[in-house]
Amino acid sequence: MLEALKKEVCDANRDLEREALVTLTWGNVSGFNPERKLVVIKPSGVPYAELKPENLVVVDLEGRVVEGSLRPSSDTPTHILLYKHFRGVYGIVHTHSPHATAFCQAGRELPCFGTTHADHFYGTVPLARALTEAEVVESYEHHTGRVIVERFEGLDPLAMPGVLVAHHAPFAWGPTPRKALENAVALEAVAKMALDTLQLAPGLGPIPAHILDKHYQRKHGPQATYGQSGKR
Amino acid sequence: MLEALKKEVCDANRDLEREALVTLTWGNVSGFNPERKLVVIKPSGVPYAELKPENLVVVDLEGRVVEGSLRPSSDTPTHILLYKHFRGVYGIVHTHSPHATAFCQAGRELPCFGTTHADHFYGTVPLARALTEAEVVESYEHHTGRVIVERFEGLDPLAMPGVLVAHHAPFAWGPTPRKALENAVALEAVAKMALDTLQLAPGLGPIPAHILDKHYQRKHGPQATYGQSGKR
Amino acid sequence: MLEALKKEVCDANRDLEREALVTLTWGNVSGFNPERKLVVIKPSGVPYAELKPENLVVVDLEGRVVEGSLRPSSDTPTHILLYKHFRGVYGIVHTHSPHATAFCQAGRELPCFGTTHADHFYGTVPLARALTEAEVVESYEHHTGRVIVERFEGLDPLAMPGVLVAHHAPFAWGPTPRKALENAVALEAVAKMALDTLQLAPGLGPIPAHILDKHYQRKHGPQATYGQSGKR
Amino acid sequence: MLEALKKEVCDANRDLEREALVTLTWGNVSGFNPERKLVVIKPSGVPYAELKPENLVVVDLEGRVVEGSLRPSSDTPTHILLYKHFRGVYGIVHTHSPHATAFCQAGRELPCFGTTHADHFYGTVPLARALTEAEVVESYEHHTGRVIVERFEGLDPLAMPGVLVAHHAPFAWGPTPRKALENAVALEAVAKMALDTLQLAPGLGPIPAHILDKHYQRKHGPQATYGQSGKR
Repeated sequence: MLEALKKEVCDANRDLEREALVTLTWGNVSGFNPERKLVVIKPSGVPYAELKPENLVVVDLEGRVVEGSLRPSSDTPTHILLYKHFRGVYGIVHTHSPHATAFCQAGRELPCFGTTHADHFYGTVPLARALTEAEVVESYEHHTGRVIVERFEGLDPLAMPGVLVAHHAPFAWGPTPRKALENAVALEAVAKMALDTLQLAPGLGPIPAHILDKHYQRKHGPQATYGQSGKR
Repeated sequence: MLEALKKEVCDANRDLEREALVTLTWGNVSGFNPERKLVVIKPSGVPYAELKPENLVVVDLEGRVVEGSLRPSSDTPTHILLYKHFRGVYGIVHTHSPHATAFCQAGRELPCFGTTHADHFYGTVPLARALTEAEVVESYEHHTGRVIVERFEGLDPLAMPGVLVAHHAPFAWGPTPRKALENAVALEAVAKMALDTLQLAPGLGPIPAHILDKHYQRKHGPQATYGQSGKR
Repeated sequence: MLEALKKEVCDANRDLEREALVTLTWGNVSGFNPERKLVVIKPSGVPYAELKPENLVVVDLEGRVVEGSLRPSSDTPTHILLYKHFRGVYGIVHTHSPHATAFCQAGRELPCFGTTHADHFYGTVPLARALTEAEVVESYEHHTGRVIVERFEGLDPLAMPGVLVAHHAPFAWGPTPRKALENAVALEAVAKMALDTLQLAPGLGPIPAHILDKHYQRKHGPQATYGQSGKR
Repeated sequence: MLEALKKEVCDANRDLEREALVTLTWGNVSGFNPERKLVVIKPSGVPYAELKPENLVVVDLEGRVVEGSLRPSSDTPTHILLYKHFRGVYGIVHTHSPHATAFCQAGRELPCFGTTHADHFYGTVPLARALTEAEVVESYEHHTGRVIVERFEGLDPLAMPGVLVAHHAPFAWGPTPRKALENAVALEAVAKMALDTLQLAPGLGPIPAHILDKHYQRKHGPQATYGQSGKR
């Protein structure tokens, strides 16, 4: 079942390595089919180069394996929770990409320092808080999803398609697994640029709102002038 | 039309990726034919690996598409303005290359810290100012070109073939698309070196004028001793 | 003799280069056969691309060459000492991977700043002290092993599969040469992240114990939920 | 003439790119035949991928082209001066490798912060002073050689096979072009490590003399235990 989605999720997982977002097997991509309410996700601990569409695992929104002989990614409960709460999000990427992870580890949000950032993220990329001991004991991966959803109260996940989880690592998402991957690539790139920017200008604040608005709207929304019409 | 120029512009766009200057599709190269006053430029949002000479878009100096079925790069108005004002510039490269972009984001010019820089840029690489809200509303890409031209009042664009745009990213140029690409590569390389140099020597000033002059003249101008004669 | 182990050690040595852990020939991997008490190790100074299983050197725990026509790695006495003292360790990797080496050179331990670290190392990666002049004169490589063993008094080498040697470079290990290599990759990756983290948050302390525990246990120990059962 | 040396110099020039030591054509390797007192050097401005042994230029110690139809590297006078003064040096590499160049630009020497450095350079890599205006006017490349020779008064070029030239970039050398290339690789690697080390430990001093001595002697001199005998 879901052969086209499996192919897309498999390709996006393999591209994690091509885009230099992962070390060892530290990352995974999933896709969501909203009609059937099923998630296609990477199996745990399998090297990217060995992944094939038929190895992917299909789980329902209760986390039950519906298809596949391998164990799903240990991060599956986090993916599921995000699909339940983020309307219009049909692809999720989790990595430990090094520069975005440095912001997570430092416990710092990622302000919009330029148009590169504004093209993908509409403002400061938020930081989800650390889990309490009780949350960790009860269900680590489930509560990782919960603190992300909690942090996004009042935010539009499609305008801010990524988050930094304190002490941990980033998640990115989008309307498809491919778009989620692009946002993960963009998040890592702007995090790297931000580190160098802060070396040159410690204490720098975000760009003016009118530039943020223009760049975000140039790529997104009804007035978008970027890319080929009908292809975005 | 302009088949040779299309081939050169296509190759230079594809080399953006080979030179590690771009992430996703964040960059574009154009070329200018001064006799026919036409610009050949990358189509918007197309992956570099899929680019072919016949996909390139030909526009006139009013921004009208003269040939090509795809939409031109959203940065086309900036390229056009520079070709109108910078005599002898027949190739332009725009990227978000990470280290040069960090200087743009930090709002800092890039002083000449050594001969690597002096071989390509005759002095401090200037910073073009941020756009006002009115400029952004009226025409973002056009005014991006305007603030660059404004900043170059009194500067020779062939001796200083690049600029850092505040809050945004760099542009580089040259007498051909290939030379523009080389200057974009050099700008990114010297920006990276400058970041490390400033870590080691905060507050460092530029190199003495006599070394700047020597290195720049060694590669450029009538006394050039670099490269093979007739090949530069 | 030990053909399977030679193959595994050869592959792991060659992967040092693929994983970008080594420059020139600055690194080596060994494997240990506990029944026969023999060590299989890289020959000294041979380029990785030219390594074949039959070039590897077999030495006993006294350092005597038992098989092989080439001279073993000059670090062999260090490997031997660790195999003698670290029960359950059957693979060792020594590199000068740049970011982990920076911590060694700076004389700083590597605190656990996030879950990436916690997935591989159960707490702060320790620093082994500098050798005294007398130790260097008597037997440099042997005493390098000794200061590591000294530093691990009270530590479990399987829960902390790596060390930073002051003025020198890191060692990593594990239950197989392949697992030792993965730990060397992880050590370099978390050292790089830590450098960037410390730029963003100077003076940062380690993550809370309940997150360290959870992540370490998720990948290790009887309750592990990571990877495919029977494959870890 | 000198076919074997041309082949070796050509290979080493091409490896500059493979080792990521050069951007564009910013680097060159030469070799010296002490019997015939002839230097084989890269032609100026030719891409590495297009280099063939027959393109190399042969010059005598007066700088006259003895063989070859292309113009020699503009840095040829510097190479010649070093061959004249540094006995036993038969290969020279000049690059603008980014981290070593950052030390040159910052005007800082490179102290020995660890055994990686000690394995190749016996102590602090020295900085040659900036050229005066008169020196630049008279003969830039010749005087670049002169300030290096001046700085090496009392130093053994075979024990310290590299230098940082202020405002400029590094040179490395050795008993063969291949060994010179290895020293250029090592210089760039230890400069990168030193930058990260200094971030972690500002103001750090060099390693103790007894560790420097041991590591240097382990790879060099009559008691060397590194590599295969007769192969070094």
